[in-house]
Amino acid sequence: MNLKPSLLNAPLSVINVGVDSFNASVSAHGGSVVQVNWQPPGNADPGLAWRLAQLLGDPGDPASVGSRIDQANASAVQRVIAAQPVLVDVALHARDVWPDMDRTLLHAGAPVAWDDMCGPMHGAMIGAVLYEGWAESMAQAQSMLAAGEIRFAQCHDYSAVGPMTGIISPSMPVLVVRNQTHGNLAYTNINEGIGKILRFGANSPEVIERLRWFENTLAPAMRAAVKARGGIDLKSIQSQALLMGDEVHSRNVAATALFFMQLAVGLSQCDIERSQMHEVLRFVADTSQFFLNLSMAAAKATMDAAHGIEYSSTVTAIARNGVTTAIRVSGLGKRWFEAPSGRPQGLYFPGFTEADANPDLGDSAITETAGFGGFSFAASPALTLLAGGSIAASIEYSRLMYQITDGRNPANSLPAMDFAAAPVGIDVRKVVDTGIQPVVTTGIAHREAGVGQIGAGIVRVPMACFVKALEALAQTYLPL
Amino acid sequence: MNLKPSLLNAPLSVINVGVDSFNASVSAHGGSVVQVNWQPPGNADPGLAWRLAQLLGDPGDPASVGSRIDQANASAVQRVIAAQPVLVDVALHARDVWPDMDRTLLHAGAPVAWDDMCGPMHGAMIGAVLYEGWAESMAQAQSMLAAGEIRFAQCHDYSAVGPMTGIISPSMPVLVVRNQTHGNLAYTNINEGIGKILRFGANSPEVIERLRWFENTLAPAMRAAVKARGGIDLKSIQSQALLMGDEVHSRNVAATALFFMQLAVGLSQCDIERSQMHEVLRFVADTSQFFLNLSMAAAKATMDAAHGIEYSSTVTAIARNGVTTAIRVSGLGKRWFEAPSGRPQGLYFPGFTEADANPDLGDSAITETAGFGGFSFAASPALTLLAGGSIAASIEYSRLMYQITDGRNPANSLPAMDFAAAPVGIDVRKVVDTGIQPVVTTGIAHREAGVGQIGAGIVRVPMACFVKALEALAQTYLPL
Repeated sequence: MNLKPSLLNAPLSVINVGVDSFNASVSAHGGSVVQVNWQPPGNADPGLAWRLAQLLGDPGDPASVGSRIDQANASAVQRVIAAQPVLVDVALHARDVWPDMDRTLLHAGAPVAWDDMCGPMHGAMIGAVLYEGWAESMAQAQSMLAAGEIRFAQCHDYSAVGPMTGIISPSMPVLVVRNQTHGNLAYTNINEGIGKILRFGANSPEVIERLRWFENTLAPAMRAAVKARGGIDLKSIQSQALLMGDEVHSRNVAATALFFMQLAVGLSQCDIERSQMHEVLRFVADTSQFFLNLSMAAAKATMDAAHGIEYSSTVTAIARNGVTTAIRVSGLGKRWFEAPSGRPQGLYFPGFTEADANPDLGDSAITETAGFGGFSFAASPALTLLAGGSIAASIEYSRLMYQITDGRNPANSLPAMDFAAAPVGIDVRKVVDTGIQPVVTTGIAHREAGVGQIGAGIVRVPMACFVKALEALAQTYLPL
Repeated sequence: MNLKPSLLNAPLSVINVGVDSFNASVSAHGGSVVQVNWQPPGNADPGLAWRLAQLLGDPGDPASVGSRIDQANASAVQRVIAAQPVLVDVALHARDVWPDMDRTLLHAGAPVAWDDMCGPMHGAMIGAVLYEGWAESMAQAQSMLAAGEIRFAQCHDYSAVGPMTGIISPSMPVLVVRNQTHGNLAYTNINEGIGKILRFGANSPEVIERLRWFENTLAPAMRAAVKARGGIDLKSIQSQALLMGDEVHSRNVAATALFFMQLAVGLSQCDIERSQMHEVLRFVADTSQFFLNLSMAAAKATMDAAHGIEYSSTVTAIARNGVTTAIRVSGLGKRWFEAPSGRPQGLYFPGFTEADANPDLGDSAITETAGFGGFSFAASPALTLLAGGSIAASIEYSRLMYQITDGRNPANSLPAMDFAAAPVGIDVRKVVDTGIQPVVTTGIAHREAGVGQIGAGIVRVPMACFVKALEALAQTYLPL
């Protein structure tokens, strides 16, 4: 068969890979083109591409660096899948957990100096200083913070996570989650609901009042109920909630209801005041994101068990301080790989636009590292509106995430994808190789302190975080 | 352009409508065939087809019978959409609601004589007689029932519905649902959970004991909680649950959790014993189908408001007594149009097969008439296993139901179909015209008394019910 004449005589059908400017000339002459999106690995940096190739290694050679990374990542994913996070306690004060805390405020994301912090972080810190009684006015609080009289630290360095500003101050109660498989603990604060709330930077008297109610009423009741139930299995709630329209990051309606059932049964076993029980149940029933913090702590307890595996390029944390987005990698210790945070795209509450949005903020993307949120987007049709309104779009996000992960978690199935096991274990190498940035579902904070939440949407983790992490992997693990 | 030569020279592509035996010869000669399933309206009965044509009428003539039926059905659908079912009370005993009940047992479906009843119905009736204390042994109960000493009546004739055998006896508590829009009331019994339960025909001492616990512990607590909450909005729970993986007939996991939240908040406002509260909360938390009966009563309160509209061919009830499946039609009064029940197809518990199954049973298909269950199949990926395992199959069931209904309920959206409003208002004419039988999701009872549930699946409502109803519509509304 002579191919050449028939190829040139028949109508032209072209598959174009990469740069799409070639397509126009084909179309103009009556040909049909299918575009395949592709870009050279390593952002077209030949040095980076070469190091990536070495880190990907030779699958036929088990002693190659690439194979050792593969094995380390398989072990990391195995630890993620085997994790069993359980809410085992509610500490009435953070300082009970960390006695040396003194005047420290834990916050979300990587370290950031007072002058560089975003508006909501300033607002929340001022609120926490007032709540602690370290200052009597906002002005006094602000000058103490600016003068360095308050120490800052990362939630993540205390095995903790906090949504949005993520502030944990010494008097705040913290939820204590234990990974029953690996024995490690993780901590988080309590979800305040919507409206004026500290985690979005509000600090008015009602915000402080609610935090005191947490300390005096909610936390002791939750503590008693959790003890009465012998702990509450968070992994089981997460798995069930994925079958009920949650991705357990930005939607937790089902997970909160399932948690509420355990809480209420537990409370009814305890000797607490009827009015206290009523206040607590009503608050949780009215707070559809109540489970968010628990989902985060479950994810933190899970991912910490996968951290510190030599050679592993598995991402074990994604955290945003409102200025930068930072990642940690299992085989690279406690270093953060940072880049400026993007602004989420999504739906804004009436009267607000993207121009009002603070750059991406909060430790909640820990859920994505554990396979929830954007990675389980297909589980949550109701969140689809954030992705442009079609079920197909949310399925497409999950589909893409399979390309940058090393495993699938059989405990997490995606109903809309015929119950496929959700992708888990972000591999730094695959992100750089494919150019596909992890998808995160997220709330959107106003950029000024005190305004609070103005919308919800999605954000992509900056590619620069992964390029920096890849360079560090090369420096650490490739032979000189 | 001369079509003929090109048609015969080019490869043959055929669309075959109806009888599919023509396809083989086309395929055998290299042609491609697309089969369109179609059958002549009226089951190929020309008389029936002619009456159907008259009942469908002339859309251009507003005075035609068809147009009057269209208008009546639009009004029926409007009443369904406008309904607001709320749980307003829990009557501690059925006889409090119906003081003349005396020794009456209400049961599911259309009337059926003792000798003709199925095994589970026999078993449940014996259990109810023992529970009421009318007899001291099963043998005595059975001979009383056979001797006609106990009166039987239909749940539906008491504005009530009961799942499976649907037995309501005078001492049983009943849930009271009010349609706030139209003012009518509907009633149902309380869901017993799974295992050995009266509604599936079991009658052992533990079954009777549970019914007493309902009467003495559960119902008074629920009553107090419902009063404390000023009623519980069932429509809102149904709508939310459709976004959370339930079709609120055979799956009620989310709906039960949402109901539980209201119940627990209510209980914490009441002055009841802590141990009673604990027992009640634990029972409901462990009973994932607890909301089924509430969903049914909500559907009954909804559909009763659409019943009795002159000219309407809208189906207002589908009910099965374990022998026959029967429907009621809005414009045809209280008559039942009956045909032998089919056996559900689905998943059987280990050790059981379709040969063990009782024919389709229970009033629960009232939910399908209100647009839930099989009509909202696409909302419930977890039920997909019943439909053969693919999401596409469950979407296809919902899609088919649009073809036999007159409306779409904006309160009920189907996430997997990009939040399309669910089909509602089964039109007898459309069922006969298209040959598409309504799909019902259902539990499967063993055909012998006392064994209980052996599986879950789907069943189609027999076409003969609709043919009979169509003939009655013709007789009632067509000019002689």
